[in-house]
Amino acid sequence: MSEHSSEFDLIRRYFTDGYPHNENIRLSNGDDASIIIVPTDMDLAQSIDTQVADVHFPANAPAHLIASRALRCAVSDLAAMGAWPQGFHLALTLAKADEEWLASFATGLKQTAHELGIALLGGDTTSGPITVITIAVQGLLPQNERLVRSGAQAGDDIWLSGSIGAATLALDSVIHEPARQTEFTQAYYHPQVHIAFGQLLLTVASACLDISDGLLQDAAHIAKQSKVTMHIKAEWIPTAVPISNCHWSRCLTGGDDYQLLFTAPPEYRSRIEAFATTVELDQCQRIGHVIDAAANVELCHNGLPLILATSGYQHF
Amino acid sequence: MSEHSSEFDLIRRYFTDGYPHNENIRLSNGDDASIIIVPTDMDLAQSIDTQVADVHFPANAPAHLIASRALRCAVSDLAAMGAWPQGFHLALTLAKADEEWLASFATGLKQTAHELGIALLGGDTTSGPITVITIAVQGLLPQNERLVRSGAQAGDDIWLSGSIGAATLALDSVIHEPARQTEFTQAYYHPQVHIAFGQLLLTVASACLDISDGLLQDAAHIAKQSKVTMHIKAEWIPTAVPISNCHWSRCLTGGDDYQLLFTAPPEYRSRIEAFATTVELDQCQRIGHVIDAAANVELCHNGLPLILATSGYQHF
Repeated sequence: MSEHSSEFDLIRRYFTDGYPHNENIRLSNGDDASIIIVPTDMDLAQSIDTQVADVHFPANAPAHLIASRALRCAVSDLAAMGAWPQGFHLALTLAKADEEWLASFATGLKQTAHELGIALLGGDTTSGPITVITIAVQGLLPQNERLVRSGAQAGDDIWLSGSIGAATLALDSVIHEPARQTEFTQAYYHPQVHIAFGQLLLTVASACLDISDGLLQDAAHIAKQSKVTMHIKAEWIPTAVPISNCHWSRCLTGGDDYQLLFTAPPEYRSRIEAFATTVELDQCQRIGHVIDAAANVELCHNGLPLILATSGYQHF
Repeated sequence: MSEHSSEFDLIRRYFTDGYPHNENIRLSNGDDASIIIVPTDMDLAQSIDTQVADVHFPANAPAHLIASRALRCAVSDLAAMGAWPQGFHLALTLAKADEEWLASFATGLKQTAHELGIALLGGDTTSGPITVITIAVQGLLPQNERLVRSGAQAGDDIWLSGSIGAATLALDSVIHEPARQTEFTQAYYHPQVHIAFGQLLLTVASACLDISDGLLQDAAHIAKQSKVTMHIKAEWIPTAVPISNCHWSRCLTGGDDYQLLFTAPPEYRSRIEAFATTVELDQCQRIGHVIDAAANVELCHNGLPLILATSGYQHF
């Protein structure tokens, strides 16, 4: 009666060894809960993120790429708070315990965890009709410091950490040829996570978030929570295709790139540019400014209002 | 362009107000991440738990009961570590944003959160073909104290916090008449979470876990991690039906009750009985003892070995 169901074996095999470790972990994997230490001068930032097969990624995409994207998207929320990644818990629902898929998924997860410096603390593997990946991430923040959505002030500049649109424009290729690798699919499967930049922004930004549902829709979150108008100049936005391209508007309304959108007082311009240089963000640009008006997003092109058909990703 | 997708509205409406709060929360809901403070003399215990419709609960069960069970099952892992519940993150995948279902689910979640004293810190709502509920829970532990699976010693008593089997025996009723309420379905939808008892056990137990996959299968986890034989006397186990009942063996191999299974040196017997009285556990009983032999679970009835067809729930 010492036999174990296959679940325990597969968890042990693929989700224990070879992941990053850190000094804040007292206990990880294999008990009812993991245990961490939070240093006395730090707070803990936490976020949870779900990706569903054929909703958020193609079910038949290579598993190591699915893992890369899932973990990067989750950790991006920590970057948007200015937090330093500490650990994550993984809840994985699978139709069957497919060795080959799991081996590939674990390889991608492990590699991405090392790239982002985040430890796997524990998890749960369940059976279900479709693949669902939920990742709960956490990171450390200096006590009482954080980037939030509610601090944008009239007169602030609006900034974008880099070019948007490539990941969204990769979708057709990703759906029809999941294993094909292009510059755009690279942006989709391996979105940059601006961990170091987020921490630098703690000293200058008045508001910040990571763009997951499209620039315009996410800008509206800052507008609403800060009670300001976000005035954005279309010609200043770094995009994957030029404004003359018929796909340009999708760059503004598609999420998927996980660039940071943030606001900061104009006196910090040169400091922000220096930070961007430090972390090698060559397309970090000002894209507009904050106005003292009703919570809204105004998009203009050469001074004229520009209205797009949708503002971003609709979850339901 | 200040419009929002329905997701944001539904999250705001059902998953913000009316949940317990506590002094360790700096920021909850509505930003990229939540932020908590962990007191300097405490560690943070964390666990993640997924329930899939028609795998872990009937899809057509009343939503408030689904919420109750999901949160209780997740928090039970904290009780099994001796931790005090602090907060949780909820990842909810739904086929559609059904107002009535969400209202009922939120009512059950809120009530259960108050019963267990745990705050809702944040979440993610996604669209998918089936309902999947993932809950990441966390609780506080005195620094360097915890109940683990690996500490059982030869000579220790084996204890069970209460009767097992009712929740498993409720399954037929739960599947065919999800809204019917009996003593057994009560055990299924509202499993007791032994939070206070778990904390008392910190001072006496050598190993502990909560039974989610069946007594025998979970006993094997302690056996394996502690490298001991768990010798269990069938006639001592408090069960929902007597040993003469044809369903008795299901009580030992079905999970679902979330009783604590723990080991402790014999000198603590009277203290454990006093603890059980304090928290009103009238069926907390010794069910066997730990033997210095290979990692194994031995079930005996009146001194004779008893072999059951299965040891517990098979996840795949």
